[in-house]
Amino acid sequence: MQLQQLFSPSVQHTLDVIGIFVFAISGALLAVRKNFDVFGIAVLAEVTALGGGLFRDLVIGAVPPAAFTDLGYFVTPLLATLVVFFLHPHVERIQMGVLVFDAAGLGLFAVSGTTKAYSYGLGLTASATLGLATAVGGGVLRDVLANEVPSLLRWDRDLYAVPAIVGASMVVLFIRYDALTPLTSGLAVVMAFVLRLAAMRFHWRAPRAWNRRSTVTEE
Amino acid sequence: MQLQQLFSPSVQHTLDVIGIFVFAISGALLAVRKNFDVFGIAVLAEVTALGGGLFRDLVIGAVPPAAFTDLGYFVTPLLATLVVFFLHPHVERIQMGVLVFDAAGLGLFAVSGTTKAYSYGLGLTASATLGLATAVGGGVLRDVLANEVPSLLRWDRDLYAVPAIVGASMVVLFIRYDALTPLTSGLAVVMAFVLRLAAMRFHWRAPRAWNRRSTVTEE
Amino acid sequence: MQLQQLFSPSVQHTLDVIGIFVFAISGALLAVRKNFDVFGIAVLAEVTALGGGLFRDLVIGAVPPAAFTDLGYFVTPLLATLVVFFLHPHVERIQMGVLVFDAAGLGLFAVSGTTKAYSYGLGLTASATLGLATAVGGGVLRDVLANEVPSLLRWDRDLYAVPAIVGASMVVLFIRYDALTPLTSGLAVVMAFVLRLAAMRFHWRAPRAWNRRSTVTEE
Repeated sequence: MQLQQLFSPSVQHTLDVIGIFVFAISGALLAVRKNFDVFGIAVLAEVTALGGGLFRDLVIGAVPPAAFTDLGYFVTPLLATLVVFFLHPHVERIQMGVLVFDAAGLGLFAVSGTTKAYSYGLGLTASATLGLATAVGGGVLRDVLANEVPSLLRWDRDLYAVPAIVGASMVVLFIRYDALTPLTSGLAVVMAFVLRLAAMRFHWRAPRAWNRRSTVTEE
Repeated sequence: MQLQQLFSPSVQHTLDVIGIFVFAISGALLAVRKNFDVFGIAVLAEVTALGGGLFRDLVIGAVPPAAFTDLGYFVTPLLATLVVFFLHPHVERIQMGVLVFDAAGLGLFAVSGTTKAYSYGLGLTASATLGLATAVGGGVLRDVLANEVPSLLRWDRDLYAVPAIVGASMVVLFIRYDALTPLTSGLAVVMAFVLRLAAMRFHWRAPRAWNRRSTVTEE
Repeated sequence: MQLQQLFSPSVQHTLDVIGIFVFAISGALLAVRKNFDVFGIAVLAEVTALGGGLFRDLVIGAVPPAAFTDLGYFVTPLLATLVVFFLHPHVERIQMGVLVFDAAGLGLFAVSGTTKAYSYGLGLTASATLGLATAVGGGVLRDVLANEVPSLLRWDRDLYAVPAIVGASMVVLFIRYDALTPLTSGLAVVMAFVLRLAAMRFHWRAPRAWNRRSTVTEE
């Protein structure tokens, strides 16, 4: 319980809303590219922003999930929808800025998701896994609804899961050694954020299977 | 609790079963078009008919969900599977009739989903959102399983979400002003139903993003 | 409760881990074919192996689900990922062996899923349905994440659902007539296993809709 109060509630809430907003922007932008109407944009913004946390809350038994009890969490993706609806050429143009915010959201959600799962009694490994799921789950749902192969799984994309795994793992190590404080939590967020930025800057990629045969046998 | 008894239980159950049946028909028809076998038809019929309510029940913590406690809810999509399996050319021919029933199901599920969510203690906005999810969730799952872009999100389809949003919003307004009765509930169902029929008749569509660029940058 | 102890706990756990391992192999192999990176392979292995049981546990209210409380369940798909990552041409070459193990996993999960659902108070039909979902759910999620039409639904694949349905139905019949023992449970597993092997050997398929028109009207 104390764990959930890493930061003061208002600081935590502000951080959450920022993460939700940037994830919603990424969902709304994909919806525009896929030619969806304004309701499709709003649905994809909501799912991208809230899907990961919703999955985590269902798994840990935190029902109704935060996505349905906090009006700010619900309204924020609608604001992102409005921004993208009217300004999407400008948002596309500052795509790099969006990606930087998305990296921040990735770090924030990995850390807060891990912390919340642990505070509901899950083990360290399970908590880190749910932190990862909180951070990347919305993006996977976004791509599934848009009928695309999830960007998370593709080898030709810069590392995305690894920074979240590092951030979540740092949190469980801090918990294990009784060193989780707002400062160390912040450190984990920053580490995930910086790793993701470096992955984008230097195009770090994860390896594909050893001796990958070139033939694709699936039709 | 009292809210769940808007209509007499047997009337409510009959309305639910009608909604389940027509949604199941739409799932089974898509399965036939996708060339699925009879088990694939049954799976898609079940998912389309029960998926929205299943999602709502997991979110509000109503476990096991109604889809798994009411045998009639489970058997009805199997009947729809049989009907489509043997009579699908005829069902296709009366596609317009199916769409009219689907519009009725949309209204019924939006209203009953909103009411059930509120009776489990959710707020007004969250209840309306879950009413919408109850009404459209099954169709989204149907399209995802069939590996298609969800019809709900596409701009080139007649309005589908808006009638459900209107019906669900009417319910929460009636709740807010203490005016929810079988009569006003029925009014919300009818309003959603008529709006959907009008959207089909006059091909109402929602706008796409402002100044939509024609280039599609996704591969 | 007693029902959950069909086999001694260690035997049950060993059977579960075997089922998880072979399902994870099938997920990892598809990920390699789809050209995913090593993290994508791990994600698809985890989802394929644990997705069906996760769905069942959410529906019956067993939270946190076993997938997040048993470290062995979580680690096993990572081992399968390593095996496929380094040895996938060899694993592909023994594809028939993998399919035989997959058939065993299908039978094990159908029976253990049905038993667990019943022990949580669900009815006989709902329990059998959840047994089927436990057995086939992971494979459906695997195909959805890989952006393919679920193999389960396609008519041009050998029977997969029917053996699981038979196994799950045998369990509920044994429960109904008070004859569920380790022996009869094992019989249900073997029956599902043998039926699936026969379906592969003789290419049994389920029928498509009656008088299937050849035109596919979906774009």
